[in-house]
Amino acid sequence: MFSYQKRLQYPVNIKKKDLRMAKYLVTQYGGPNGELGAALRYLNQKMTMPDDRGRALLNDIGTEELGHVEMLETMIYQLMKDATLDELKEAGLDTHYAEHAKGLFPTDANGVPFTVAYFATTGDALADLSEDMAAEQKARAVYENLIDLTDDPDVIGPLLWLRQREIVHYARFKELFEIYEKKNKKPNTNKAFKPMEEDIILQQLYMTPPNNYYY
Amino acid sequence: MFSYQKRLQYPVNIKKKDLRMAKYLVTQYGGPNGELGAALRYLNQKMTMPDDRGRALLNDIGTEELGHVEMLETMIYQLMKDATLDELKEAGLDTHYAEHAKGLFPTDANGVPFTVAYFATTGDALADLSEDMAAEQKARAVYENLIDLTDDPDVIGPLLWLRQREIVHYARFKELFEIYEKKNKKPNTNKAFKPMEEDIILQQLYMTPPNNYYY
Amino acid sequence: MFSYQKRLQYPVNIKKKDLRMAKYLVTQYGGPNGELGAALRYLNQKMTMPDDRGRALLNDIGTEELGHVEMLETMIYQLMKDATLDELKEAGLDTHYAEHAKGLFPTDANGVPFTVAYFATTGDALADLSEDMAAEQKARAVYENLIDLTDDPDVIGPLLWLRQREIVHYARFKELFEIYEKKNKKPNTNKAFKPMEEDIILQQLYMTPPNNYYY
Amino acid sequence: MFSYQKRLQYPVNIKKKDLRMAKYLVTQYGGPNGELGAALRYLNQKMTMPDDRGRALLNDIGTEELGHVEMLETMIYQLMKDATLDELKEAGLDTHYAEHAKGLFPTDANGVPFTVAYFATTGDALADLSEDMAAEQKARAVYENLIDLTDDPDVIGPLLWLRQREIVHYARFKELFEIYEKKNKKPNTNKAFKPMEEDIILQQLYMTPPNNYYY
Amino acid sequence: MFSYQKRLQYPVNIKKKDLRMAKYLVTQYGGPNGELGAALRYLNQKMTMPDDRGRALLNDIGTEELGHVEMLETMIYQLMKDATLDELKEAGLDTHYAEHAKGLFPTDANGVPFTVAYFATTGDALADLSEDMAAEQKARAVYENLIDLTDDPDVIGPLLWLRQREIVHYARFKELFEIYEKKNKKPNTNKAFKPMEEDIILQQLYMTPPNNYYY
Amino acid sequence: MFSYQKRLQYPVNIKKKDLRMAKYLVTQYGGPNGELGAALRYLNQKMTMPDDRGRALLNDIGTEELGHVEMLETMIYQLMKDATLDELKEAGLDTHYAEHAKGLFPTDANGVPFTVAYFATTGDALADLSEDMAAEQKARAVYENLIDLTDDPDVIGPLLWLRQREIVHYARFKELFEIYEKKNKKPNTNKAFKPMEEDIILQQLYMTPPNNYYY
Repeated sequence: MFSYQKRLQYPVNIKKKDLRMAKYLVTQYGGPNGELGAALRYLNQKMTMPDDRGRALLNDIGTEELGHVEMLETMIYQLMKDATLDELKEAGLDTHYAEHAKGLFPTDANGVPFTVAYFATTGDALADLSEDMAAEQKARAVYENLIDLTDDPDVIGPLLWLRQREIVHYARFKELFEIYEKKNKKPNTNKAFKPMEEDIILQQLYMTPPNNYYY
Repeated sequence: MFSYQKRLQYPVNIKKKDLRMAKYLVTQYGGPNGELGAALRYLNQKMTMPDDRGRALLNDIGTEELGHVEMLETMIYQLMKDATLDELKEAGLDTHYAEHAKGLFPTDANGVPFTVAYFATTGDALADLSEDMAAEQKARAVYENLIDLTDDPDVIGPLLWLRQREIVHYARFKELFEIYEKKNKKPNTNKAFKPMEEDIILQQLYMTPPNNYYY
Repeated sequence: MFSYQKRLQYPVNIKKKDLRMAKYLVTQYGGPNGELGAALRYLNQKMTMPDDRGRALLNDIGTEELGHVEMLETMIYQLMKDATLDELKEAGLDTHYAEHAKGLFPTDANGVPFTVAYFATTGDALADLSEDMAAEQKARAVYENLIDLTDDPDVIGPLLWLRQREIVHYARFKELFEIYEKKNKKPNTNKAFKPMEEDIILQQLYMTPPNNYYY
Repeated sequence: MFSYQKRLQYPVNIKKKDLRMAKYLVTQYGGPNGELGAALRYLNQKMTMPDDRGRALLNDIGTEELGHVEMLETMIYQLMKDATLDELKEAGLDTHYAEHAKGLFPTDANGVPFTVAYFATTGDALADLSEDMAAEQKARAVYENLIDLTDDPDVIGPLLWLRQREIVHYARFKELFEIYEKKNKKPNTNKAFKPMEEDIILQQLYMTPPNNYYY
Repeated sequence: MFSYQKRLQYPVNIKKKDLRMAKYLVTQYGGPNGELGAALRYLNQKMTMPDDRGRALLNDIGTEELGHVEMLETMIYQLMKDATLDELKEAGLDTHYAEHAKGLFPTDANGVPFTVAYFATTGDALADLSEDMAAEQKARAVYENLIDLTDDPDVIGPLLWLRQREIVHYARFKELFEIYEKKNKKPNTNKAFKPMEEDIILQQLYMTPPNNYYY
Repeated sequence: MFSYQKRLQYPVNIKKKDLRMAKYLVTQYGGPNGELGAALRYLNQKMTMPDDRGRALLNDIGTEELGHVEMLETMIYQLMKDATLDELKEAGLDTHYAEHAKGLFPTDANGVPFTVAYFATTGDALADLSEDMAAEQKARAVYENLIDLTDDPDVIGPLLWLRQREIVHYARFKELFEIYEKKNKKPNTNKAFKPMEEDIILQQLYMTPPNNYYY
């Protein structure tokens, strides 16, 4: 179970309203590469990791991401809480106002509702950790885009920190991926694929690529 | 931010595998009236509650629901962890196995991925609390259906407890709804609807229903 | 079956084009709390109401909501029928024009297509009526937002009337909810939950909230 | 606006429960080619038909399809209303029961919720009527599949009648398509495509198909 | 299998950036009536066409549409590749930039992700070909809207050509539809509908339309 | 543009019908980790790769995956083409038959329609290639599950070959990822993140994990 600690993981104190920026940040709340998807991905995948180390890593990072969701909610809320109706219209948040007033809702930057179709669980530790490494890289890229889109140091600060956390998480997932790859410790498998044989086929195929490959 | 406590909110110790039951329980994980939707609904809505009491209630119950998600994940995992491939086929979980092996994934009982389209935030405290009361009633109803579908006391126990929590949450949301209704403390509103006038129109309309109303 | 009556339930005569307003109104056509969802929700749920009174109420209000859908279609159409291409561009309806020209399409204000994931049926009269009460509250809140967004009395008139209808419907659903609650007339149930025992557990739980509850 | 007439457009009296059949019929309720989609498609498109004749045809058939939705709801309800829990399990409707008890919900036969992404409006009368003709053909095909799947004359009767209506509607849409094609009465268009020129290009292209065309 | 030919089916050389136009064109990439949907529709349906002629036609046009997807990708890319961040903001592509930088993604013009719910396969040749004819008409209509929205001959050229191809494809699908209609060559059917009887019912129904038909 | 070659990339000759297997294979056609998603992901991402090598690799593999889609279509078609209605019922493909007869449709194994929400493009080469590596690992895992679910060598053969291709593609994407990582050749970026500084923060954070990390 989870308990709530009444503080943010990293402080957020945005003094200047910026409605366009609020609109962009939503994508890291409920968009395809956002923090909500990350949290649910890891907390969901942890159940089938092959050992305690794996379960703990997924659980820890998943729990941390729940705190990132809260940071983003706070940023979005602070960026738009003092806006007038005219300012909302100006920024194109009038469509948001029509449906949600100033309430938050987890969507991407275009207003498409969050869906778990954004992530996968395969029950295969190597595949799941690859997915997790990709998730961290994609979130890093989006944070870089978001930083491009603002000049306000109160916004850039938390975004830089969040981006940094993605890099740390990537490193930790990669570490575990490599450990499992060595042990070839695949969970729940009753398959007997012969790696030797594979190598041979691999080589052959690699040497005879389809004829339309042009480099 | 959230911290993880390494225990379930209510103990889950299922000794007998039951794959059909695993399939049903998924709907309270990632289905339209499930715990994941509930947790996200409340943690999302809390930002625009009009006072500390409202924010605290939404935050508390939202945090608790995250723990319910974990209970359901544990139940589903225990119900299917020892299954053979033939048993999965027998129970219709072979389609799940094809994609996820024994990994969990938040869907409804038919495999439709979770989406936040299942819930709403309006930024209006009365509307949001109505939605929350409805959510608890619907979850209660689904738990009753799930209890109908099993005879295993190890499964019924946690389900009865979860159902009970929905009733408690319903009572607490109702309590707050009534407090706000009295104060008519609507957040973020610059509207000046005249309640008097409304009452009059209300009465008129109520007395002249459209002609196809048949009772 | 339904027959069409060649008049609107409430007159709509909008003389001034307003393309932004057209864009917002779409959300009460095909958005999460809109009239289309309301109509389908009630006409769908009526089948499992426990008595004639319930079936009639759901059927009547569902049928009325079909007429509200038509009112919104008419309003949207009148607001944009005379627009030039440049005006559509100015208002951000050029993306709509690309796909639909001036045709209508049931989406939310951001263009997300309507889905029945927006509503639920549980086969449990109390849960269904809670959902219906919430639906009316949410629709009321959205109509208030929409009224905020315009100054045109030709638009405000029908919106005030529609908002009023939501309040009437809410009252009628609440009335029926309370009748069923007293009778505890749950349809299709073979469960024997003991209310006494429940009350005791309820009290206990209510007295020992999880430690992170902070009020 | 619409008024409800307390009778079905065609009588439905199913005496034998058949849960698999209930499961299939759902697809003509809320599936991609079902009656709900048809009703909404036509009632939505009618707004931009170029003349009264077009508006009337779309409105009439759309209204009729609302009655077909009700027929399907009635059929599904009658087919499963007396089922025991064991029978629901046997038929694979236990996943439905978990979420909805015996309540109806507009999905396809696999339980995927209805979405208006199933249909289109283009604001172009010829394109819309082509879509409508296709809709009727597809619904006809699905009714033929459904008739294949049952031997119960009480089920086949209404299905044959519904299939027949699709053929009638197809004929009427085709009739109107041809009238508009002759007049080339395209609504809301400020384009000046030169048909002559087109014919020439058409011919050229038709004579020089891409080299991978193999007949 | 497919091989790639390193040239576009029709040349695309756009010299002037136009970000709004890029935003509109996306709908013919990943929108409901776009080229991606067309390609997948035909390549998917080809498997159940009743003869070689049908399979070949669907396969040829499906393959060609894959090339149209590439043309649209190229157009969109050329229209926005030199844009500055300020220009992206001006054009409302900042929400796209937040998530995708200048990467492409198959959505409609509002950013709603492509889904195969946009098309259907019925396994019935006549129904499938009706759907295909409708698809071509709808794509034609959208191309006409897109041509309306620009004055740049470098953009209009390829759009006119693509529109022309839709007309050609429509003609070819219609040709095949009529051939199959004559032979009544329905694939995979074990039904024995009596056309005679149908005609009679058809006539009767056609003569007694429901009473609310108003022309 | 693409041209079609009238042969499969790897021969498929399934002699024994197996309807359950057809149902599973669909997930590699239109499911979250399937070949259709893979093809579209790569062909979509290629546009923003930073150099010819990147564009060529993505284009080649994307084109190859289109051929894998065709292989899966062929396998599914062969597995179910001779089935009787009773056999379809037995295998739970009756719900498919109701809607599609024996036509194919790109869904996951539960019938959920394919959506491009399954993949991402970020315009950042490292993030996109991470996503691609993950995609190949996930597809490999699903092929292993599918091989578990059958004993028919005619089915296992193509599946082993397809699984092998995923491993080859993974290796090639990894190779390119490492080249780009060295060059830090990020496309379209005007950011100036200081790697040095990052390393320092990275280390600090890595040394002070949140207190609920439990290993």
